[in-house]
Amino acid sequence: MASIAVIGAGAVGGYYGALLARAGHDVRFLLRSDLETVRARGLDVRSVQGDFRLPVVAAFATPDEIGPVDWVICTLKATALADARELIRPCLGPRTRILALMNGLGIEDQFAAWFGGDRVFGGMAFVCINRGGPGVIHHLEYGRVSIAHYRDDEAELDALRELLESGGIEAGVAPNLLYARWEKLCWNIPFNGLSVAAGGVGTQTILRDKALRSVAEQAMQEVTAVGNADLAAAGSTARLDGDEVVRRMFALTDTMGDYRTSMLIDFVLGRTLEVEAILGEPWRRAEALGVTAPTIGTLYALVRAADQRGRGLMRGLGPEDVRQAPVV
Amino acid sequence: MASIAVIGAGAVGGYYGALLARAGHDVRFLLRSDLETVRARGLDVRSVQGDFRLPVVAAFATPDEIGPVDWVICTLKATALADARELIRPCLGPRTRILALMNGLGIEDQFAAWFGGDRVFGGMAFVCINRGGPGVIHHLEYGRVSIAHYRDDEAELDALRELLESGGIEAGVAPNLLYARWEKLCWNIPFNGLSVAAGGVGTQTILRDKALRSVAEQAMQEVTAVGNADLAAAGSTARLDGDEVVRRMFALTDTMGDYRTSMLIDFVLGRTLEVEAILGEPWRRAEALGVTAPTIGTLYALVRAADQRGRGLMRGLGPEDVRQAPVV
Repeated sequence: MASIAVIGAGAVGGYYGALLARAGHDVRFLLRSDLETVRARGLDVRSVQGDFRLPVVAAFATPDEIGPVDWVICTLKATALADARELIRPCLGPRTRILALMNGLGIEDQFAAWFGGDRVFGGMAFVCINRGGPGVIHHLEYGRVSIAHYRDDEAELDALRELLESGGIEAGVAPNLLYARWEKLCWNIPFNGLSVAAGGVGTQTILRDKALRSVAEQAMQEVTAVGNADLAAAGSTARLDGDEVVRRMFALTDTMGDYRTSMLIDFVLGRTLEVEAILGEPWRRAEALGVTAPTIGTLYALVRAADQRGRGLMRGLGPEDVRQAPVV
Repeated sequence: MASIAVIGAGAVGGYYGALLARAGHDVRFLLRSDLETVRARGLDVRSVQGDFRLPVVAAFATPDEIGPVDWVICTLKATALADARELIRPCLGPRTRILALMNGLGIEDQFAAWFGGDRVFGGMAFVCINRGGPGVIHHLEYGRVSIAHYRDDEAELDALRELLESGGIEAGVAPNLLYARWEKLCWNIPFNGLSVAAGGVGTQTILRDKALRSVAEQAMQEVTAVGNADLAAAGSTARLDGDEVVRRMFALTDTMGDYRTSMLIDFVLGRTLEVEAILGEPWRRAEALGVTAPTIGTLYALVRAADQRGRGLMRGLGPEDVRQAPVV
């Protein structure tokens, strides 16, 4: 049994951490808003694969209380990346491994720069999950984690896969980290982007509206083109097949129900959006690689504008705001 | 002096009609919501070029009361095009000419089919204008009208130019109708589109935000490409110069102040948007001509989604809406 620190235990960290704790691992959760509730009542997972409760959970307010562990699973929002260094460091021993289970490009590069690349992994969770309330996690669909090691070390990957599978988590090894990141972006860019840019819509609205669906496809094709150029520039021979990705991602999304993406939820709750990790950084890669990506650029600009204006953007704007004083 | 029916006298019709009435023409306004106010108090134009009042205005509730005139100036919203036939017909005599001072592609084709092409003109108003209240028009900037005749008849164009100039309205003759329409769309597609798609922003926000500005440029370049393909397909040798258009349109917009586009105003006031005329029809032309226009397509899909969901799209969506019941 391993000791595991879950840093940033929102819905994703809470869910995967709970699965590992249920399997008997020593899982220590770093919590903020839900700390008292989880300490008092544990974690409640309402899952499509079967509900379960952890009545007693090791919940902490600071990483110093957690101390060194075998594994750190970092599930912070990409917007909190700057805080990750100080939150992870107290949990590191000489052999501690770190899994970045986060959105965005460039996360592992940052972790490798801070902590050394040999111990760094990336994980891409394909899962529909929400926080249902303090200490309550709603797991709606899927759950597979696509994993990669920063230096493509196969023995290390085996260790991570074994850990995840011991908790009943389906783990797939990606051709490499960059491939896995771009593959995840094939979903995140169109669906997270459109969910906010189209004014607050779930995935079924995007799929059923012919025009939105066509924009989602167009964005996905751009993501595979940029991703493949990025893979080639990095010397990798792995490639995403645009048409196959579109088919697969749309088939996945078709069975999701009217899922609200994490970006939409963040937007509605007035949180900072993961706009740079999911849209800005990929768009800058496209520019740097000379790949035209007008749809990614447009979604980036629109989601960024929404993020800057915040949730009140429509609420605050009334008829009185368009009655402009004449220029005199 | 000419008799003129202004059909659909919103801000644009009210403004140009008032200029012609001030010059002594017999201008008859078809009004709806402002009818009683305008009958009682006339029209009040607060203009960057000098305020003026028309204390007595010929205002009517039906086109039958207006009767046949020399000129019909149709300033209906493109969304009301289906009503135009019945509203214009009572104003037609055998020699009545019709100027479509409206947004969108294909308007004059429709008018020509209904009334014969010899009498049909198109006008593209480059003007910043708002309704300030019942019977009150705010003219903020510009005012030039670019005109074309459905059959490129030069003598007819002289007649229209003389009419407009008699009212102090600057008129420029476009190379042809299709060119004029696409030139206007070079402004309307990026700025009307982004003003709504970015969540309710004025033109200065678009110009000052690097990402939005770059999307506006990208959209404008796509519009010139589609417009030029459309001109070529129609056998015209006229061409829009993408870089010149971008420079000119941005220079125009730079001096506008934080202008709220007509589409944004419609959106905030809960009116139907001119989404098909300004975005949908150009996008379908692009598809038919085989010109890639991903930015136009994206703006079309997003504005269409906003139009369908209406102004409440953000207001109504609260934290309770993202707390999804788990799938069981």
